[in-house]
Amino acid sequence: MTGSPISIDLVSQSNASASEVLEDEYAALGRKLERRGIAIDAIKDRVKDFGVAVPSWGAGRGGTRFAKFPLAGEPTNIHEKLEDCAVIHQLGKSTPGVSPHFPWDCVDDYAGLREEAAAYDLVFDAVNSNTFQDQPDQVQTYATGSLSSTVEATRQQAIEHNIDCIEIGKKIGSKRLTVWVGDGTNFPGQQDLGRSLDRYIDATSHVYDALPADWTMMLEHKMFEPAFYSSVIADWGSSLMAAQELGDQCKCLVDLGHHAPNVNIEQIVARLHRAGKLGGFHFNDSKYGDDDLDSGSINPHQLFLVFNELIEAERNPREGFDPSYMIDQSHNVTDPIESMLSSAETIAGCFARAVIVDREALSAAQNDNDVMLAFRTLRAAYDTDVGPILAKAREEQGGAIDWLGVYRASKYRERKAQERKAVGLGAGIV
Amino acid sequence: MTGSPISIDLVSQSNASASEVLEDEYAALGRKLERRGIAIDAIKDRVKDFGVAVPSWGAGRGGTRFAKFPLAGEPTNIHEKLEDCAVIHQLGKSTPGVSPHFPWDCVDDYAGLREEAAAYDLVFDAVNSNTFQDQPDQVQTYATGSLSSTVEATRQQAIEHNIDCIEIGKKIGSKRLTVWVGDGTNFPGQQDLGRSLDRYIDATSHVYDALPADWTMMLEHKMFEPAFYSSVIADWGSSLMAAQELGDQCKCLVDLGHHAPNVNIEQIVARLHRAGKLGGFHFNDSKYGDDDLDSGSINPHQLFLVFNELIEAERNPREGFDPSYMIDQSHNVTDPIESMLSSAETIAGCFARAVIVDREALSAAQNDNDVMLAFRTLRAAYDTDVGPILAKAREEQGGAIDWLGVYRASKYRERKAQERKAVGLGAGIV
Amino acid sequence: MTGSPISIDLVSQSNASASEVLEDEYAALGRKLERRGIAIDAIKDRVKDFGVAVPSWGAGRGGTRFAKFPLAGEPTNIHEKLEDCAVIHQLGKSTPGVSPHFPWDCVDDYAGLREEAAAYDLVFDAVNSNTFQDQPDQVQTYATGSLSSTVEATRQQAIEHNIDCIEIGKKIGSKRLTVWVGDGTNFPGQQDLGRSLDRYIDATSHVYDALPADWTMMLEHKMFEPAFYSSVIADWGSSLMAAQELGDQCKCLVDLGHHAPNVNIEQIVARLHRAGKLGGFHFNDSKYGDDDLDSGSINPHQLFLVFNELIEAERNPREGFDPSYMIDQSHNVTDPIESMLSSAETIAGCFARAVIVDREALSAAQNDNDVMLAFRTLRAAYDTDVGPILAKAREEQGGAIDWLGVYRASKYRERKAQERKAVGLGAGIV
Amino acid sequence: MTGSPISIDLVSQSNASASEVLEDEYAALGRKLERRGIAIDAIKDRVKDFGVAVPSWGAGRGGTRFAKFPLAGEPTNIHEKLEDCAVIHQLGKSTPGVSPHFPWDCVDDYAGLREEAAAYDLVFDAVNSNTFQDQPDQVQTYATGSLSSTVEATRQQAIEHNIDCIEIGKKIGSKRLTVWVGDGTNFPGQQDLGRSLDRYIDATSHVYDALPADWTMMLEHKMFEPAFYSSVIADWGSSLMAAQELGDQCKCLVDLGHHAPNVNIEQIVARLHRAGKLGGFHFNDSKYGDDDLDSGSINPHQLFLVFNELIEAERNPREGFDPSYMIDQSHNVTDPIESMLSSAETIAGCFARAVIVDREALSAAQNDNDVMLAFRTLRAAYDTDVGPILAKAREEQGGAIDWLGVYRASKYRERKAQERKAVGLGAGIV
Repeated sequence: MTGSPISIDLVSQSNASASEVLEDEYAALGRKLERRGIAIDAIKDRVKDFGVAVPSWGAGRGGTRFAKFPLAGEPTNIHEKLEDCAVIHQLGKSTPGVSPHFPWDCVDDYAGLREEAAAYDLVFDAVNSNTFQDQPDQVQTYATGSLSSTVEATRQQAIEHNIDCIEIGKKIGSKRLTVWVGDGTNFPGQQDLGRSLDRYIDATSHVYDALPADWTMMLEHKMFEPAFYSSVIADWGSSLMAAQELGDQCKCLVDLGHHAPNVNIEQIVARLHRAGKLGGFHFNDSKYGDDDLDSGSINPHQLFLVFNELIEAERNPREGFDPSYMIDQSHNVTDPIESMLSSAETIAGCFARAVIVDREALSAAQNDNDVMLAFRTLRAAYDTDVGPILAKAREEQGGAIDWLGVYRASKYRERKAQERKAVGLGAGIV
Repeated sequence: MTGSPISIDLVSQSNASASEVLEDEYAALGRKLERRGIAIDAIKDRVKDFGVAVPSWGAGRGGTRFAKFPLAGEPTNIHEKLEDCAVIHQLGKSTPGVSPHFPWDCVDDYAGLREEAAAYDLVFDAVNSNTFQDQPDQVQTYATGSLSSTVEATRQQAIEHNIDCIEIGKKIGSKRLTVWVGDGTNFPGQQDLGRSLDRYIDATSHVYDALPADWTMMLEHKMFEPAFYSSVIADWGSSLMAAQELGDQCKCLVDLGHHAPNVNIEQIVARLHRAGKLGGFHFNDSKYGDDDLDSGSINPHQLFLVFNELIEAERNPREGFDPSYMIDQSHNVTDPIESMLSSAETIAGCFARAVIVDREALSAAQNDNDVMLAFRTLRAAYDTDVGPILAKAREEQGGAIDWLGVYRASKYRERKAQERKAVGLGAGIV
Repeated sequence: MTGSPISIDLVSQSNASASEVLEDEYAALGRKLERRGIAIDAIKDRVKDFGVAVPSWGAGRGGTRFAKFPLAGEPTNIHEKLEDCAVIHQLGKSTPGVSPHFPWDCVDDYAGLREEAAAYDLVFDAVNSNTFQDQPDQVQTYATGSLSSTVEATRQQAIEHNIDCIEIGKKIGSKRLTVWVGDGTNFPGQQDLGRSLDRYIDATSHVYDALPADWTMMLEHKMFEPAFYSSVIADWGSSLMAAQELGDQCKCLVDLGHHAPNVNIEQIVARLHRAGKLGGFHFNDSKYGDDDLDSGSINPHQLFLVFNELIEAERNPREGFDPSYMIDQSHNVTDPIESMLSSAETIAGCFARAVIVDREALSAAQNDNDVMLAFRTLRAAYDTDVGPILAKAREEQGGAIDWLGVYRASKYRERKAQERKAVGLGAGIV
Repeated sequence: MTGSPISIDLVSQSNASASEVLEDEYAALGRKLERRGIAIDAIKDRVKDFGVAVPSWGAGRGGTRFAKFPLAGEPTNIHEKLEDCAVIHQLGKSTPGVSPHFPWDCVDDYAGLREEAAAYDLVFDAVNSNTFQDQPDQVQTYATGSLSSTVEATRQQAIEHNIDCIEIGKKIGSKRLTVWVGDGTNFPGQQDLGRSLDRYIDATSHVYDALPADWTMMLEHKMFEPAFYSSVIADWGSSLMAAQELGDQCKCLVDLGHHAPNVNIEQIVARLHRAGKLGGFHFNDSKYGDDDLDSGSINPHQLFLVFNELIEAERNPREGFDPSYMIDQSHNVTDPIESMLSSAETIAGCFARAVIVDREALSAAQNDNDVMLAFRTLRAAYDTDVGPILAKAREEQGGAIDWLGVYRASKYRERKAQERKAVGLGAGIV
């Protein structure tokens, strides 16, 4: 095991050959930004400090209820997933955290797992509980609900599982628990909509009570799927209601794909921040439902607008601002390592674009109701090609300017396809 | 002026000829309900007690930004509108309240207006303020906002107008103020999304302070239109946040057409009730956006599901349950009197269907997670043709069994087309 | 093996005890319809002639990418599925056809399978091919497409599979092939959108060429899932283009859950009929995406409006009208037998309501632009509780008036849970 | 009257002061593109040849059914509108065509109007008919339909108006007629959905017959508004059906805001091109419905993807490719001149980005099913800041590098506010 799954020499050689072009582009962009009063190196430093976690399960191929098409060499356990996450961070240098999911990532030795991650220069981010599936040895089924179930024993089982996740989290150095439940209904009348939330909040309060004082619990809402008529925590309003009742350590998590069509997500970000309840993000993109496509692949401008709100929140922290960022995508047709490298770059790029917005000019135009000037001030930042800043930040940290070229040249996946056991066909559920 | 714009003899004759059939249908339905343990007369009595207000502006033809096609004989002032509302209530007997809009319905003598309504057996329901249009004599423009405007004088003007509405409301016997603003933006960056809500809440708190102790202020959210990128009070979450900050007398109003596509509105009803903030409803229907179509014309089942939640709320009032109901539709291609009679009947029908749900059986099936039985228990009520109950309730109160036949036979609209001044073409705004 | 999996005595006893009430309700409804000039027995006869197929795969529990929760006693092969379909038809008497899916339902002896179905009083309806999953022994993968794949060998494999389905269909007495592919992309740029359709049409033309002269090929469009950025046959326009190119025996199939939000599906039905390309339906309901919920459970009025178009099409057949009807739902939280009985009843009910529309009055009101009268003429039919007609039709054909009561009393599922092998947990794909 | 409403000196001075920076940025971008094998000057030349028409009515303030807020100095007749369009083209140099709307733009002397435009260096693009509003002197009302009306005289009137538009078009040098109707319904049952299309096609065929041999008729579909339940030409499928029946000179026009939520518009473009029916575009953007927001203001990436299809179509013209481009926006909160300059720049920018896509690399990656490489090849072009190319193209043609600065410095609007008559308040229609 090594902290650098990809040959450092390969990275260095590639960077050496790409360096001259990068210098030219970085210099040209530097002159452009300087004319706007912005020092490019300061932006580059902010990019270096920016990080977004990757989910352990994201290292494997995803799929749909119709099928999963496995990838030769995909990981089948947390150790292999960590190794893949290490590749992502080695080349991209913006994904230092890994977010595990239990029981998927259960091991016997969590202290050892933490060291294993540290050897890769990785830490563990938020722990995720799973009460949307039944496990082989499980006593109560989650078929009709978990934390909101009408069955007390089922709720109790779900509470205990979440508390177990906290216990594991303590051992691996996490400070956050993300709670997403699939609870809801497929038929009008199936459940009482009000009492379902009562039960959910009551059960979740027992998990909350088990939180260490320096932990945050994040509630993740989702409009639909797996429940198709109603979901207990379907929207940010329900998430806010629950978080308010549960207490100060409970916040709301925004997944970009969990909203109704057309909804203005950036305003939801602003609303949750205003309420002091903005806990974190799951980044992905979507065109139709919770498609879990690669971040920024469909609507990069929306991702920029979300970061615009985050920078506003940072500058105006009201009751505090310390959100947790994670990629949460389903990689159905690509190599997950490539997708997460690409997505992390896109996310960091939107962050950088939001940082270079001329906020004084924007604020002045807003106060003057100079609509066109306000719009164009924001758009000027979005239209800026910040690629050279991102590449420079990678280079200076030992990552790869041309991460795709290096990754492919390394033949990492081909080697893993030889080493790792094969994954069976996902026959689909329909 | 008379309380009965339609000939009482005409109503009586029509009812006499329809009575025998109604008796047969009412008796058959009575036997059916009795087999389910329900006394039909008790349901009929609940229907008699049920009322939904009509909006004064709903008495005129509506339109779109493309055009308005006037109706010969449509009303052009509050006096004529009241007369039309009197027709609706005389024939349908379920719309005793009229909700006025200011400055559209401004008069010199509000005590007189109240008496005028009383002579028609009508009362005034919630008053509505208007800060989404500029009036000819207005000092500040609402072009870029009203209660959330960046311009202090504009906010002040909007506050004063709302307080004026309260003052008028006191004179005409209202106890509620509905506040809907079109404030929002058409461009990303046009306004700061967080500070816009700050200003809105601050300004609205001054209106709140002017509320009499027995009044309720209702905030109406709307996803979009007239603002097309962001709206300050766009969703129930924002509405809830604002109502929580403003105080106990402030509640949220749900308009059925003001939501994102696919949203589960009945669950929003349940959520707001649980938060103690369910203030009232604007009934209409829609297929695409805020289409303001006739209530229940597109999705009558959804309307039933909303009433199902309202009956649940009534049985489980938590912190109190006293919502205000109003029809709010745009009658672009029908006679508004016919549309509101039809809609009031549809709304009362959904209420009646929700009342006859076997709640013990439903609750038992929910607790047992017997999904099919729970669904079918609810569906059995929806599938019941409650028309005879509604007709009987009308007949016993002096309304018309066959309201459409009587209205058309009365030639009311034709007479008004002779008496009233013509409305100009609505040339459209595009 | 027997044609009546449920005890005939049980059915008879239940019907006997329900008969008196049914007579009263049927008579009352008969009087009501007679007053509208409709003979109830004629409607009942039309309902008896109405049939909708059930899909073999619908007899098992469905699920989502997150999980599948198995049902004790669910079928695991086509023989058990046929038995369950026999229960549905025995009790409901409106589902004489079973639609098989290959390779899921492959057997060695198709003539025997046909006899097996016949012994249950069942026939085989449209055969369905499957090129959206990889099978263990498959040479080419469908991971990046099937009939539209860039890989010629993959297209050829998909063509051959479809031709195999036709060959099987001939043996089991089918006359229709339904082609649905999951082909599409998850990223902008992944494929050339125009050339993908070129390849699809070219490959499908080879399947078309293998159609017997009395067969119909039905193309099923789907907006999204499993592809999340673009689907080759995403909408009715693409389906129409392909069907026009392929030939007269190729028609379009409408699945109620495969459309964009808010789309007017009943108008699509009218459009495809006008183009002579309306081939068939997959019935289900949805609130968010392709939720595959029980037919009419979310929006029963929409289902009625679809049948309203079908009755119009029947009366005005233009270039012919012979659509194929099938239930296509995912039964994730109910017993599939109960859901399909409930759905078949709902579908037949919408058919019956559409049949009793006063078409002369409707047409006259449309020609007069009497909008309210046209609307209310349609609504009068929808509001009619046709339950007694459906029950009478079942009773007269030997089905169960109270199918749910009989089914549960029969303990069929409990017996199968003893007899059949257990299904493993669906661990989810995510 | 002059061809240059803005002082040429002002433009020159501004360009002179901006020139040095532009040279640096243009050179840096040139080096970057050269490394990809692209000659920047060739791209610049393509941008110079690119044009998009502006609509005459777009020069005035738009509004919603709730209100219109006039702008001091907005134009009130076609002469003033032409003058404003001249400003747009003088500064931006990419909008040589003006698309007029009748009867809004009717004058006595069309030869004179054509000369007036020519003096501004403008030509007339597609003529637009208006059968969605009633005019004061009109005999038949369009309240319940125009080309699809059940009333023969109404259809005839609509036919004649469209033929009048063709006659005017001949005089002003147009070669295209755009037909958009608001025909549709607000209630289920209001009209027969199939026969409405029959009537529409029959009536439109009479317009088609009046087309000169070198003209194109473009049918514009729109999902909803002003009709809110069904629209006769609601989607591209209906548009295609109608265009196929009408003949070779009839094509389909795509307005970016007229689709169902989530629809993949770029694929519709590819489909219509494949069918030989892609006639033209109306550019705008939207977040909720047909918001008519500024092009690319909400989802610039989607606009790029549309142009990506257009460039593909140009390279693979199949049965010909000669689309007509127009901006069609509602400028409710900005100066229309500024919005159209900004939009024209955005549109030209998306065109330029689509032109620089490495099509050989893209095609190779698609054929190899190298999903990530295909995606990133497209994205590399989108991420390129093509601003310097657009500015250089403007400068070389005599337009303004900094068009916003020059326009504001010119005080054009302030002068017009003095000269032009005021527009009344748009009181709203609701």
